[in-house]
Amino acid sequence: MSIDERLADLGLQLPASPSMPAGVVATFSWVRTVGDRVLVSGHGAQDLDGSPMGPFGRVPDEVSPEQATGSARAAALSVLSSVKSAIGELDRITAWVAVAGYVQAQPGYARTTAVINAFSEVILDVFGNEVGQHARTAIGVAALPLNLPVVVAAELSLAPAH
Amino acid sequence: MSIDERLADLGLQLPASPSMPAGVVATFSWVRTVGDRVLVSGHGAQDLDGSPMGPFGRVPDEVSPEQATGSARAAALSVLSSVKSAIGELDRITAWVAVAGYVQAQPGYARTTAVINAFSEVILDVFGNEVGQHARTAIGVAALPLNLPVVVAAELSLAPAH
Amino acid sequence: MSIDERLADLGLQLPASPSMPAGVVATFSWVRTVGDRVLVSGHGAQDLDGSPMGPFGRVPDEVSPEQATGSARAAALSVLSSVKSAIGELDRITAWVAVAGYVQAQPGYARTTAVINAFSEVILDVFGNEVGQHARTAIGVAALPLNLPVVVAAELSLAPAH
Repeated sequence: MSIDERLADLGLQLPASPSMPAGVVATFSWVRTVGDRVLVSGHGAQDLDGSPMGPFGRVPDEVSPEQATGSARAAALSVLSSVKSAIGELDRITAWVAVAGYVQAQPGYARTTAVINAFSEVILDVFGNEVGQHARTAIGVAALPLNLPVVVAAELSLAPAH
Repeated sequence: MSIDERLADLGLQLPASPSMPAGVVATFSWVRTVGDRVLVSGHGAQDLDGSPMGPFGRVPDEVSPEQATGSARAAALSVLSSVKSAIGELDRITAWVAVAGYVQAQPGYARTTAVINAFSEVILDVFGNEVGQHARTAIGVAALPLNLPVVVAAELSLAPAH
Repeated sequence: MSIDERLADLGLQLPASPSMPAGVVATFSWVRTVGDRVLVSGHGAQDLDGSPMGPFGRVPDEVSPEQATGSARAAALSVLSSVKSAIGELDRITAWVAVAGYVQAQPGYARTTAVINAFSEVILDVFGNEVGQHARTAIGVAALPLNLPVVVAAELSLAPAH
């Protein structure tokens, strides 16, 4: 089964490429490919048209843990959309390597792991435990671009298995 | 001298694999190996049985800088334990590559460098200046998983020297 | 045109190697080269003599967004100085890979992207869109070493194009 078929099976639809609000300029690449390595910039939840998707704000006082979980899940689809644009077919991915999850968090909020788990679960569901497994950090930060509650960056590999 | 002998010489004992408190699920790999690269997830201080080790909280108002230094040193042993489980022998490491240190910090706490130095010192003591050297960031964040005061992620290399 | 000539053309002068204030010890490498990969530690703005350059503090209440932009631009020059020391000639760089930008930010400050854009713009101006492009994260954190408003880490590649 191809990754696209797997996504359809799971009822997951990828958003369009990230579209920034008026006045926000992105001087970086959403995905940078160097050799077999695929570096993915920090992505947040996006609506299907690619625009930033709420809720916005801090976890858990402005955005509930449940909402943050949804935002992390949506961020996974944003990442997949950008990676697909960059490499053509998601089936080319041979390994997820590392994931860096950032939660806009109230000081001392100790449950960032649970929030970023929602990102990882999408990746493992879609790619399976072999390809999808990844090292990870999940930290709580003071501020995120666009006031997003969750931003996730990642590295993937296209290297042939050997 | 093997790394295990070096650790014994320094009186350093590695904890068991990370064991999460009830209700905390880790959907990521503590170590992800891709080719010659070893990606290590964020680790905090662990007791010898692998459970999270206190003190917990924010530096310096809840956890003193001295305590945070101890936590960073313990995080180094947690990382070494997980890496050893993943690759079999720590002697296979040919280079430490990069270290990302996160301190749960009071806003404006300007001494995160000193805290994460304790992590780096363990690595340099055990692996020497050639293999052990690494690029590093040491930042203060609003929140960390399990309310840990210090979490450290890393990348290592198993590539043969050439 | 060489990168050094390009820097001169743009009127950009690289500072000396980072020099830490009394009492601050750096137990890491400012740049770590492993094979074709160049890992760059977090750098802030530096005066031409290599010492940390103000303003210091939090964005936007202690350091204005305009000042933070200047700090991000200066951090790019700090990074270039350290990389040049490590690899000899900046012309050896074949690809910027990834940039991690950290802004010491007031909780909820949603404009970290604009601050770190100033770093990326220097890189793109100096190296062009092909070599200079990079994946990026730009997050707001509670604290940074030396009370710097902006710290940026990066990865570059020396691999020959193929």
